[in-house]
Amino acid sequence: MIDPREFIRTKRDRRSHEAQAIREFVAGYRAGSVQDYQMSAWLMAAFLNGLDAAETDALTDSMLHSGRVFDWSALGRPTADKHSTGGVGDKISLMLAPLVAACGVLVPMVSGRGLGHTGGTLDKLESIPGFRTTLDAEAMGAQLDRIGVVMVGQGPNLAPADGLLYALRDVTSTVEFEPFIVSSIVSKKIAEGAKAIAYDVKCGSGAFMKTPEAARSLAKRLVATSHALGARASALVTDMNWPLGGAVGNALEVVEACETLHGRGPGDTRELTIELAAEMLTLAGAEPGLVPARRRAEAALDSGAAWERFLELVRAQGGDIRALEGRAPLHPAPVVTAVPSPADGVVAGCDCFAVGELVVGLGGGRRTKEDEIDPRVGLVVLRRPGERVRRGEPLAELHTAGDDPGAVARAAACFRIADEAPAAGRRVLDRIG
Amino acid sequence: MIDPREFIRTKRDRRSHEAQAIREFVAGYRAGSVQDYQMSAWLMAAFLNGLDAAETDALTDSMLHSGRVFDWSALGRPTADKHSTGGVGDKISLMLAPLVAACGVLVPMVSGRGLGHTGGTLDKLESIPGFRTTLDAEAMGAQLDRIGVVMVGQGPNLAPADGLLYALRDVTSTVEFEPFIVSSIVSKKIAEGAKAIAYDVKCGSGAFMKTPEAARSLAKRLVATSHALGARASALVTDMNWPLGGAVGNALEVVEACETLHGRGPGDTRELTIELAAEMLTLAGAEPGLVPARRRAEAALDSGAAWERFLELVRAQGGDIRALEGRAPLHPAPVVTAVPSPADGVVAGCDCFAVGELVVGLGGGRRTKEDEIDPRVGLVVLRRPGERVRRGEPLAELHTAGDDPGAVARAAACFRIADEAPAAGRRVLDRIG
Repeated sequence: MIDPREFIRTKRDRRSHEAQAIREFVAGYRAGSVQDYQMSAWLMAAFLNGLDAAETDALTDSMLHSGRVFDWSALGRPTADKHSTGGVGDKISLMLAPLVAACGVLVPMVSGRGLGHTGGTLDKLESIPGFRTTLDAEAMGAQLDRIGVVMVGQGPNLAPADGLLYALRDVTSTVEFEPFIVSSIVSKKIAEGAKAIAYDVKCGSGAFMKTPEAARSLAKRLVATSHALGARASALVTDMNWPLGGAVGNALEVVEACETLHGRGPGDTRELTIELAAEMLTLAGAEPGLVPARRRAEAALDSGAAWERFLELVRAQGGDIRALEGRAPLHPAPVVTAVPSPADGVVAGCDCFAVGELVVGLGGGRRTKEDEIDPRVGLVVLRRPGERVRRGEPLAELHTAGDDPGAVARAAACFRIADEAPAAGRRVLDRIG
Repeated sequence: MIDPREFIRTKRDRRSHEAQAIREFVAGYRAGSVQDYQMSAWLMAAFLNGLDAAETDALTDSMLHSGRVFDWSALGRPTADKHSTGGVGDKISLMLAPLVAACGVLVPMVSGRGLGHTGGTLDKLESIPGFRTTLDAEAMGAQLDRIGVVMVGQGPNLAPADGLLYALRDVTSTVEFEPFIVSSIVSKKIAEGAKAIAYDVKCGSGAFMKTPEAARSLAKRLVATSHALGARASALVTDMNWPLGGAVGNALEVVEACETLHGRGPGDTRELTIELAAEMLTLAGAEPGLVPARRRAEAALDSGAAWERFLELVRAQGGDIRALEGRAPLHPAPVVTAVPSPADGVVAGCDCFAVGELVVGLGGGRRTKEDEIDPRVGLVVLRRPGERVRRGEPLAELHTAGDDPGAVARAAACFRIADEAPAAGRRVLDRIG
């Protein structure tokens, strides 16, 4: 049995932990022999004195094995998944999971809810009437076998130590620490049974990582720790200084996902979907390289196969596909207001974080875990960076539950209008293979 | 109301706390709005990122005001006390408190129990049959008024936040941090109502502070924080590389204290008692300077006034003075064994920490709070550094509950016999005024 005081002292004094000691400490925490106040003292010591790669890997492994680890190998097909570190307007999973499944790779996707200014895939899916995001293991296996894709929330048996630790980190100000972020993400992804993982590490004002350096560092560690735990992995570092696509808000993003699955969505949304699908197909061994994998993904999108698979997924999980097919409205907002440009000029920038906060403030996200989501509200950005605009012309459409002039002003303030066009930015900034 | 997460983040990010924020955090902890796991995360952040002088003062003040603060000013006489950071054979309080009281200064002394390898004044006093170390406030006041001295334990209302925090520090490996040590010591001393405090900061193998630098730094902070909280204070840095006096062990130390009060005790014990009494008398304003204060203390010791006051104190708190007067034995040990010198030579050194651990191992101290103390056991050192000794001649007398040859060997191993005499060491190494 590990002595928790000795374990804490080791990190307090800047020494390294043995992998076995980390496993015993996390297991002791789960079992109750290590107390909350001891874990939190260690969390702070690790936050301030650091954890090296081997320690991060051991922590991830401990969290992975704190609960059930799924294994879909009996289904006889490769598995892959994607994880995004969270952005504004990031509805990529909605297209990506069925698209990759349509290419023959199983996607056992476990997603989260909105956190802070970012949206969450579960909240978006639940804006489809009837869609269920909880499935037991048997139902997951059967659905994976039948249609190749599930999209669910994290059940209580999946890396439960991560849930406990995250709650403790949240109240002890030890959230923003790369090794903790890595262990939380990787343990859950591997526990869901994905053998190949593509990471989308967002960077910029709308992301948790504000600088390319921080995002690149996290991307490298996510890939390295995934490798250490036996998964194939790669990461894209992508720009989050402008909302992804046009729609920000739960039902609005589902509508845009449907558009993209029909080949009509915004270019950046299609592009990033294809890039991440190519990563997943290559990692899973379904294609020999990124170039043929991109072609395969484009074909599955353009042929309608991805769209059909999306409808099958929604039906399989109890969702009503009438709104997705355009036969019924999907949570239209009572009030839709144009957000006028305050000046003549060129659309030069967007405070992506402020857009996220705006939508949370409208009811489209959560301030606390208990908050209810309003699926109707959000913002649809109509202009792209570099476009010329005249004063009074709409920059965006604001969808609200009622009249809200303050929100219109806040939405307008998210955009920067300048005399000159900004340097053309790319969405994918870097790739870690 | 303070946000505990924001408070933790401040220290995590190496910023300084406002005094008011520290007060609210400690008050919130007492009230239950700040949780154990949040306090322990902050303790570790402070341990690693530091607390400056103003923060240490504010923390001390918060702990002081977490409970009752005694005020003896209605008694119309000055008050003073001494605090030792803990050593081996440190029975100074037993002589010092009645001595200073005999000089007209009130001594409302609150002491602790043995901790680790060091002894505790309460344990020594309780080896006097019948001696009670708990008195209520009214009884304390009455006894102070009548005989000028009380010697008691810390009641539950005296700086209760210190007790809570100490327990948490103990299990989260955040004990050995100067600002925490300072706040714990100073808050209790000021809470007991002493307006003048002499600190005896021990340094060396038998002390918690191993180096003169660490001891001097602690001494300075104890004095500075006492000043900041409105008390007069000074500190002596004293050597603890050799047990203080000859006796180590509870009843043995009481016997040696009685010898010292009769003018027959070891020279270093008398010297340090006089020095600390002079500090207390000067700080309390009873004498204008250390030179007359030393003379006054010597006179009170040599006249028997201090001894008489000690007997009054023991009687007042229910103790049986017959053993102290030599009319009855005081917990004699069943077995007393000579510890022979392993070689011819000069007594060159003593592993003072090992002596303390030896006595704890015999039953004279505690490994856990629940351990019972055996007042009979201990070691009496017969030789001083620099004395010549022949092989087989006794270095010390070991007092044990039964035959214990292993203990004799361990006792012999505490001493170092060399060819040459060590440099003559002084007991008082430094003074911070």
